[in-house]
Amino acid sequence: MEEKKRVYTFGNKQAEGKGNMKNLLGGKGANLADMNLIGIPVPPGFTITTEVCADYYKYGQEKLIELLQKEVTRAMEEVEGIMGMKFGDKENPLLMSVRSGARVSMPGMMDTVLNLGLNDDAVEGIAKKTGNPRFAWDSYRRFIQMYGDVVMDMKPDSKEDIDPFEQIMEEVKESKGIVSDTQFTVDDLKLLVAKFKEEVKKRTGNDFPTNAWEQLWGAVCAVFNSWMNPRANYYRAMNKIPADWGTAVNVQAMVFGNMGSNSATGVAFTRDAATGENVFNGEYLIDAQGEDVVAGVRTPQQITKSGSEKWAQLQGVSEDERLAKFPSLEEVMPQAYKELFDIQVQLEKHYKDMQDIEFTIQDGKLWMLQTRNGKRTGAAMVRIAMEQLRAGEITDKEALLKVEPIKLDELLHPVFNAQAIKSAKLVAKGLPASPGAATGQIVFFADEAKKFKKSILVRIETSPEDLEGMDVAKGILTAKGGMTSHAAVVARGMGKCCVSGAGEVKIDYKNRTFTTRGHVFNEGDWISINGTTGEVYEGQVETSEAELSGDFADLMKLADTFRTLKIRTNTETERDALQAVSFGAEGIGLCRTEHMFFEGERIKAMREMILADDVVGRKKALKKLLPIQRDDFKSVFKAMAGRPVTVRLLDPPLHEFVPHQLATQKELADEMGISLESVKMKVADLEEFNPMLGHRGCRLGITYPEITEMQARAIIEACLDLKKEGGVAIPEIMIPLVGTIQELKQQEQLVRKTIQTVFDERGETVEYLVGTMIEVPRAALTADEIAGVAEFFSFGTNDLTQMTFGYSRDDAGKFLPTYIEKGILKDDPFQVLDQKGVGQLVQMGVDKGRSINKDLKIGICGEHGGEPSSVEFCYKVGMNYVSCSPFRVPIARLAAAQAVLKKNA
Amino acid sequence: MEEKKRVYTFGNKQAEGKGNMKNLLGGKGANLADMNLIGIPVPPGFTITTEVCADYYKYGQEKLIELLQKEVTRAMEEVEGIMGMKFGDKENPLLMSVRSGARVSMPGMMDTVLNLGLNDDAVEGIAKKTGNPRFAWDSYRRFIQMYGDVVMDMKPDSKEDIDPFEQIMEEVKESKGIVSDTQFTVDDLKLLVAKFKEEVKKRTGNDFPTNAWEQLWGAVCAVFNSWMNPRANYYRAMNKIPADWGTAVNVQAMVFGNMGSNSATGVAFTRDAATGENVFNGEYLIDAQGEDVVAGVRTPQQITKSGSEKWAQLQGVSEDERLAKFPSLEEVMPQAYKELFDIQVQLEKHYKDMQDIEFTIQDGKLWMLQTRNGKRTGAAMVRIAMEQLRAGEITDKEALLKVEPIKLDELLHPVFNAQAIKSAKLVAKGLPASPGAATGQIVFFADEAKKFKKSILVRIETSPEDLEGMDVAKGILTAKGGMTSHAAVVARGMGKCCVSGAGEVKIDYKNRTFTTRGHVFNEGDWISINGTTGEVYEGQVETSEAELSGDFADLMKLADTFRTLKIRTNTETERDALQAVSFGAEGIGLCRTEHMFFEGERIKAMREMILADDVVGRKKALKKLLPIQRDDFKSVFKAMAGRPVTVRLLDPPLHEFVPHQLATQKELADEMGISLESVKMKVADLEEFNPMLGHRGCRLGITYPEITEMQARAIIEACLDLKKEGGVAIPEIMIPLVGTIQELKQQEQLVRKTIQTVFDERGETVEYLVGTMIEVPRAALTADEIAGVAEFFSFGTNDLTQMTFGYSRDDAGKFLPTYIEKGILKDDPFQVLDQKGVGQLVQMGVDKGRSINKDLKIGICGEHGGEPSSVEFCYKVGMNYVSCSPFRVPIARLAAAQAVLKKNA
Repeated sequence: MEEKKRVYTFGNKQAEGKGNMKNLLGGKGANLADMNLIGIPVPPGFTITTEVCADYYKYGQEKLIELLQKEVTRAMEEVEGIMGMKFGDKENPLLMSVRSGARVSMPGMMDTVLNLGLNDDAVEGIAKKTGNPRFAWDSYRRFIQMYGDVVMDMKPDSKEDIDPFEQIMEEVKESKGIVSDTQFTVDDLKLLVAKFKEEVKKRTGNDFPTNAWEQLWGAVCAVFNSWMNPRANYYRAMNKIPADWGTAVNVQAMVFGNMGSNSATGVAFTRDAATGENVFNGEYLIDAQGEDVVAGVRTPQQITKSGSEKWAQLQGVSEDERLAKFPSLEEVMPQAYKELFDIQVQLEKHYKDMQDIEFTIQDGKLWMLQTRNGKRTGAAMVRIAMEQLRAGEITDKEALLKVEPIKLDELLHPVFNAQAIKSAKLVAKGLPASPGAATGQIVFFADEAKKFKKSILVRIETSPEDLEGMDVAKGILTAKGGMTSHAAVVARGMGKCCVSGAGEVKIDYKNRTFTTRGHVFNEGDWISINGTTGEVYEGQVETSEAELSGDFADLMKLADTFRTLKIRTNTETERDALQAVSFGAEGIGLCRTEHMFFEGERIKAMREMILADDVVGRKKALKKLLPIQRDDFKSVFKAMAGRPVTVRLLDPPLHEFVPHQLATQKELADEMGISLESVKMKVADLEEFNPMLGHRGCRLGITYPEITEMQARAIIEACLDLKKEGGVAIPEIMIPLVGTIQELKQQEQLVRKTIQTVFDERGETVEYLVGTMIEVPRAALTADEIAGVAEFFSFGTNDLTQMTFGYSRDDAGKFLPTYIEKGILKDDPFQVLDQKGVGQLVQMGVDKGRSINKDLKIGICGEHGGEPSSVEFCYKVGMNYVSCSPFRVPIARLAAAQAVLKKNA
Repeated sequence: MEEKKRVYTFGNKQAEGKGNMKNLLGGKGANLADMNLIGIPVPPGFTITTEVCADYYKYGQEKLIELLQKEVTRAMEEVEGIMGMKFGDKENPLLMSVRSGARVSMPGMMDTVLNLGLNDDAVEGIAKKTGNPRFAWDSYRRFIQMYGDVVMDMKPDSKEDIDPFEQIMEEVKESKGIVSDTQFTVDDLKLLVAKFKEEVKKRTGNDFPTNAWEQLWGAVCAVFNSWMNPRANYYRAMNKIPADWGTAVNVQAMVFGNMGSNSATGVAFTRDAATGENVFNGEYLIDAQGEDVVAGVRTPQQITKSGSEKWAQLQGVSEDERLAKFPSLEEVMPQAYKELFDIQVQLEKHYKDMQDIEFTIQDGKLWMLQTRNGKRTGAAMVRIAMEQLRAGEITDKEALLKVEPIKLDELLHPVFNAQAIKSAKLVAKGLPASPGAATGQIVFFADEAKKFKKSILVRIETSPEDLEGMDVAKGILTAKGGMTSHAAVVARGMGKCCVSGAGEVKIDYKNRTFTTRGHVFNEGDWISINGTTGEVYEGQVETSEAELSGDFADLMKLADTFRTLKIRTNTETERDALQAVSFGAEGIGLCRTEHMFFEGERIKAMREMILADDVVGRKKALKKLLPIQRDDFKSVFKAMAGRPVTVRLLDPPLHEFVPHQLATQKELADEMGISLESVKMKVADLEEFNPMLGHRGCRLGITYPEITEMQARAIIEACLDLKKEGGVAIPEIMIPLVGTIQELKQQEQLVRKTIQTVFDERGETVEYLVGTMIEVPRAALTADEIAGVAEFFSFGTNDLTQMTFGYSRDDAGKFLPTYIEKGILKDDPFQVLDQKGVGQLVQMGVDKGRSINKDLKIGICGEHGGEPSSVEFCYKVGMNYVSCSPFRVPIARLAAAQAVLKKNA
């Protein structure tokens, strides 16, 4: 047997381990050592190393105890010394907790045993010592239950079966006519303990162990055992954690905040988690356990005096009442408070971040139970990072890495007034499809969005026909569709609040009502929706515009000094383009020309083009569209002067443009002077089984070359017009949905020929590129061929994800939630780029493309261009830029900077 | 300048080149040499080598003439000697043809000039010599036209513009009041020649060359030039032919069959191209040109006496009339005939295959113009190969390689009686979706297919609901859908005749009629359809069952001695399984369980399951389905006793099973005792935007595990039942549409758990495998992970093609035809596996899979499993088997044998 140190003690501001020994001691063990070494009072204990886990699986329980006996005995003596109590003693028994702790946190995957050391004698000793027999017996029955489940294997196999201990409790409650656990008397608890022990004997054939040491070894082995339970195995497989890492076991003295009026427990933050303000704050309760603070049964009190006074003011509590009923810890236990205050300062300095801490005061003595980096709002995150940077507490790189890019989103959208929302009635919940808050009057049809000054468009789902109305409405609520449904994608693009897929909202278009949770809402009724949470409220809830603080701007500037990826935006309107530039966009990565065709006269000409019988009719209609499209391009190109603008030629299936309602069909027939029947037939003809895989993208341009010609002409004429006026964008003409080199070649030649004609007509030229989307798997697979023609690649990872997974994003709502829930997928692949599958194709596309043209310009224009982990991936595979919706630009800027910092870390 | 031989002469049974010098002389040049060397009388001439093509592009025309002058002069003298005529002579002018000829045939891509050597003097010489001035002047005007277009660049750029020569001809016709070229008098032709020359002068500024040598050099350079025309460049790019191969130029003496009654021209086959019978046959005409034989203006005469007698009998022509008007060549020109007969024997022996030959008799002298392997029917192909093999003329490998696998299809389906079809009226043409011929009475609804004894089901398109009716009908005609539409795929699977996508057929379901080409057809009217050609006929046309000759069986046995790939079939019925076994199937590669759910009570229980509100309701309905499905499996497993059967778990989206018509919905509501509204709602709920990418495949089994459980149980119970009776197939349970390892793992564990339960219940086990389809691109990309769980892979290349290209096969009809027409795609990727794109994923899947499990069983079960080039690909990447529809099994057997032979060649 190898002679190695297997047990590391900690306590009393000393520790055998160190903070950097995570591999050996596990994350928790290393932190416990670390806290001791910086002088924090932590309940003493010891860590059995992760290496011992392998010993356990190799040699088994008996041999393990033999191996550990000596070291654990010594360690326990140290703990007894610090605590002044004795493990297994009758009068003054030391109780212990036994917890797992792997290198990385695996929350909830492994087992824990608390209150270890209790038996029929010890429980009396504690009852006597604390003067609180109820506490003692309740702890005892909890201990038997936990130990029985975890160590003695009494936990039922499936969730459907009932825990035998719970069943006994139910029986006793019934016989006593009580309903809640808190109603058990001491005698009831004693009865429970007796029955629990009986049940253990009955089920396992063994007596419940009364010897504290026997209890300890059982618990230690159970924790090692739980490293290999199916739950943990699955979690490791999902997260690529090797099984041979093993878990450590932490054995630590129990402390209690519910031992009387000189005990307390609480949670605190070193700064304000909502605003980021540098002020210590938190809540506590006297004579209570940790869970009581958050359970809401008793009103928690503020830790600091100033916090308490502010709280009382807000709640309308008088100073007298406050002092009587809700005094601060600062006032009640000034010494413990002072110690706590000093510790929080020290902790923040040590961990260089705002801390979220848990503490217990047992009989006047302060113990720190846990400290971790605190969760915070986006605003707080930015403020804290920048204040720490300015204070010299962290470096610029640290500041950048401290801010989660995705949280910046909160800083860019309106929010509900915090007070107003408290009294609002929640009536439905859907998916948080596009962040922000909005309040307005219900409309059911996009073309009626203007009916009210503030309207919320409520639809089963939206379609491109609804675009104008969506733009007018303050927010969008849909009953169907996921995070990447049309409504969601478009709303995010517009930076407009949207709740999608709220299945409980049943819409009746005919009567212009919807029903949810028994309420009926009519057109014109007020509702409020929160696209950040997916919540829908009855009535009007006040919103306020979030402000961009100076810290935020500073952070962005800092990010720009590190990032190498360019950031572009996806838009086709002047307004969004200008907005995106103000957010730092360096060009447009995706200008969807079809979005330009939905308003007013455009849609009419577009429909005429689609319904034309032949090329002559199409050309006639396209002639009407040409000046409109040229003007649209001019406005966008002007807004983006000097910057590149990737213009995607017509992409969606044509049926998205034609009217599907009888009335509109009739109107169109009249306008065009053809029969309703022929309109109907044409519309029916355009219907497809799987439009996503149908007649769209470059397939349109190839079957109807005159469309490509018109668009190429409109783009170049716009440029030439602007050139005269000075200040023009550099157009990058993008052929969509290319799957074969021949498709690209055919369209590329047509585009160049058309442009040459325009140049000849005008006697003037402009710079331009022709390239393609890589969005069909076959394009990625044959990117080496395609790069022979394309001057740039833009990965359309939305469609690429759809085709690589075989998921229709409009239909995936039927199974994706189940997939996420069952752990089949870790993330929605439409939100977070699937690096393992789709990413292989992206990597292949980049590598094959650059193998032919090493300077090939490559970017991404899918939804993923604004998702931090995906941005990092794009940086790693060597793209030149990412493009995302205007409101995601700041996120992408930060993520791109972080990608560089992480790579060089 | 390198001194190399640039010109190779041939003629008079001698040649400087050889048959194996294709690289230097081009295919045509090498063949001309070859024919001479085996003593065939071929018009003499010479070949300018492919190397000279490079010289031309390097040095230009002037230098080229200098380089070639000496050799060409000598070669021309040889030709003059053999022909007894002189190039450029006034009295007895030798006319020449100038043709291209690359290493591989590039039909129609490059240019040709005929009748070269004519001018104002020569034309008179020929008129005088032949006594046929019309022939002379017509040849002259054709020569000017051809030379003008090809050499003098007068061919218009686009198809829309009119050829200037054609325009002149139109003008002259108009002025003369005639409509056809044949009506031109000699004077008209002289006028045309004059106008043509004028036009040449006007357009090019040059006189039309009168010097024969000048003409020759112009034509030679024009042919070299055409090697680089856009058409040829494109063809080479498509077919991967390197540009530096170059083309040779063949200059050959012209011979004429229209020089009087001692001249003739004809075509002949060394065996019967229809039946394969070893009998010389063909047609000829006296005093005629080659095109006259096929043009149908004059009735061609038979070459052999016996053939002529048979022909007369069939046509009801008396022996006297025959001898007077239609005598055979054997009777009219016995000497030329004898020579021809001997030559055909010699040619077949030399080329070891049935030959299709063209000959001209000029003034009693026989010239062979061309010989090539003759096109033939499938039956003839098999018979010829096997007869040649038995005669020792070819080896067994040669016999196998001689038969085109795809042609075997003809041997397996009924055909129209050859006489009957001649008088039938063609009323529409669609796609040849599933081969065979059928005649029957029209029905428009699948559930009415039984209405007539022989019915043809006519639908806009079919759906799985129509399955039973499709099975009952004799044939299927659809107005929409391509070669891989539901109707086409299912019909091919059933071996049932089908014409799909006949767009001109306009169906009116309400009035139960359809209209095509002005005819209206009612329910009950007779029509006849030919699924091999796509033709639709009015009325009843007699069909006859094709017979499998003994040769065919012998060929299959021979193939089996070479092939290593196993051949399985795709089926789920006992009948088809037995049929497939009789065709040589060695197992089932795809048993689609959903097809079992459409008949009678099954569909009811299935619908009940789908419409159930919760797991309890679903389980209840599944209980009803269990015994039905078990019995279905029993019948299939019994038919396949001892062989593997891959059973795919439920795959299609559930909406395919629910009724979409109001009446059926009402019926279902009544049966289930629920409201019509709730049925409607559920049906609407199941609708998807892109069902192909929606809630289907293993996504069903994961969201509704009880379906997987039922199916696994039914499979294994069927096996256990049969085990008792003796003789059971080995089930391979296939999880469909897997894209992530987690999906497969989840379903695999569920299947194994269920099966273990059944084993425990029965106290007995059977052998089985669990594996997966590789049909989602992501599955191929992550095949290394997936192979850790799957015991076999089956490539579902239909879906893999859909997703890799992003083509919905139900919708691709809107652009695929344009794609094929414009050369963007060479083949329909649903018929011929796209080796470059989809094939990469297949190769990746195989390699990654085998890297984890080198013995992984791998097959293909897409439509491609029965397509020869795809079968060869499957062999090359190392699959174990291919699976195809029963009627494709013989094709696959032969293709698999050929794959081995080609690899080892």
